[in-house]
Amino acid sequence: MKIVRSIAEMRDMVADWRRMDATVGLVPTMGGLHAGHLSLVHMAGERSDKVIATLFVNPAQFSADEDFDAYPRNEDDDCRMFEEAGASLLFAPPIEEVYPADHVTKVHVGGLSSLLEGEFRPQFFTGVATVVSKLLIQAMADVAVFGEKDYQQLQVIRRMARDLDIPTEIIGAPTVREHDGLAMSSRNRYLSEDERPRAAKLFSAISDIARATAEGADPAPLCDAAARQLTEAGFREVDYVTVRDAKTLEHYRCSEGPGRVLAAAWLGKARLIDNVAV
Amino acid sequence: MKIVRSIAEMRDMVADWRRMDATVGLVPTMGGLHAGHLSLVHMAGERSDKVIATLFVNPAQFSADEDFDAYPRNEDDDCRMFEEAGASLLFAPPIEEVYPADHVTKVHVGGLSSLLEGEFRPQFFTGVATVVSKLLIQAMADVAVFGEKDYQQLQVIRRMARDLDIPTEIIGAPTVREHDGLAMSSRNRYLSEDERPRAAKLFSAISDIARATAEGADPAPLCDAAARQLTEAGFREVDYVTVRDAKTLEHYRCSEGPGRVLAAAWLGKARLIDNVAV
Repeated sequence: MKIVRSIAEMRDMVADWRRMDATVGLVPTMGGLHAGHLSLVHMAGERSDKVIATLFVNPAQFSADEDFDAYPRNEDDDCRMFEEAGASLLFAPPIEEVYPADHVTKVHVGGLSSLLEGEFRPQFFTGVATVVSKLLIQAMADVAVFGEKDYQQLQVIRRMARDLDIPTEIIGAPTVREHDGLAMSSRNRYLSEDERPRAAKLFSAISDIARATAEGADPAPLCDAAARQLTEAGFREVDYVTVRDAKTLEHYRCSEGPGRVLAAAWLGKARLIDNVAV
Repeated sequence: MKIVRSIAEMRDMVADWRRMDATVGLVPTMGGLHAGHLSLVHMAGERSDKVIATLFVNPAQFSADEDFDAYPRNEDDDCRMFEEAGASLLFAPPIEEVYPADHVTKVHVGGLSSLLEGEFRPQFFTGVATVVSKLLIQAMADVAVFGEKDYQQLQVIRRMARDLDIPTEIIGAPTVREHDGLAMSSRNRYLSEDERPRAAKLFSAISDIARATAEGADPAPLCDAAARQLTEAGFREVDYVTVRDAKTLEHYRCSEGPGRVLAAAWLGKARLIDNVAV
């Protein structure tokens, strides 16, 4: 696996592949790799001849009080794991390659970006949409794979790519979970030994809501009850537990298509998010 | 010259050209063609084997009280002129091809977009940056040519394309003028017979400022005097007459690089803009 630091080198590699008629898949990550990320690389490999993994902790999606500095960074480990998973190229640019000092352009996805995560992290999705639009335009891959773990992010990226006419198919990959159901996340390492077993309650709570909603129950009281139960189980703050339309993330009506249960809650220093299909 | 209405047809044509190793130039326009537009097509033709002209009156860059409905539309005339100027393809999409009903993404160029024109037309540059980013991504041309007549727009587009890593070189083409110096513009047709000769005073005023500034004069009092003279000459409102840094459009300091004189003023129903180099 070759490692490049500049957009120009990455494009040269892609141009070489294109001359050989190879198809290209892209897997943008912020590193801190776990089995969830590797499943994205595997899925990209099933869909394309060559896979570019990217490793860039994007400052634009962190607010001043978030964990940009603490975010797990270990390029050597990440490299080894990407290579074993079958990536052909790692693009790991320095910040100034992505954001030159006079960079002033932002990509904003209206509507979707202001709901749920957007209420708690106001700049987050604009930061995500901006860096992902850049990575997509840099690579001009055939497919790009993102995890369903960050479900709202996946919908924002789908909409951005469609709206900007970026000719890359956006693919969502199923969430990879620990044995007890906890969604894998780079931020799980912020959980203490004591908190870790309780963290799985988030998944069991939203799974129960999904099952009951599918059977016709009114989701609103179920969500309220789940939030109370999470607090009783030691979550220090529940940002939301809600059932939404799976595509628009607006109010869910069972007659209008599939739903999605989404939740975000704090356990100790970790803000956990998760979601499941109704 | 072939005319296509869909992004897919345009991309198919470009893909055919790419297979023949042809280079591609793009000339985005809103129609209402005059010799200025044709100079852009000529310049694109000098720089690339094939030229795509686009014809799309972009609703996103008009505010509710502006002239979207009245904007000159005559596709037959425009087609004939594009073809004579040497365009290979005309892309003239309907609104819903560019903006599907659920289109929510905007491209915003910070800083530059809020100055000068941005003060008087708050949504304008975001509308321009959004549609131009889409057209650039749709065509993936080698070069795209825009007129210096819309100087601030040219700088916004340059910055947007650089910031989003769009691999198309942005080229500015010199303003084409009538015999008396009036910059050609689709909106000049809003001028009455009586107003038309007075319109040239805008160009002579900014040319005088450019000359005096280059010779070391303080531009601020010159700009104030020019605004008064334009009002005396029958301009009903002067939005701005100013000398700025040619690249950032911030405050001009002769020691920091080239300057640009920019002006916008209303004459009857026409809002005229113009600019010249210091």
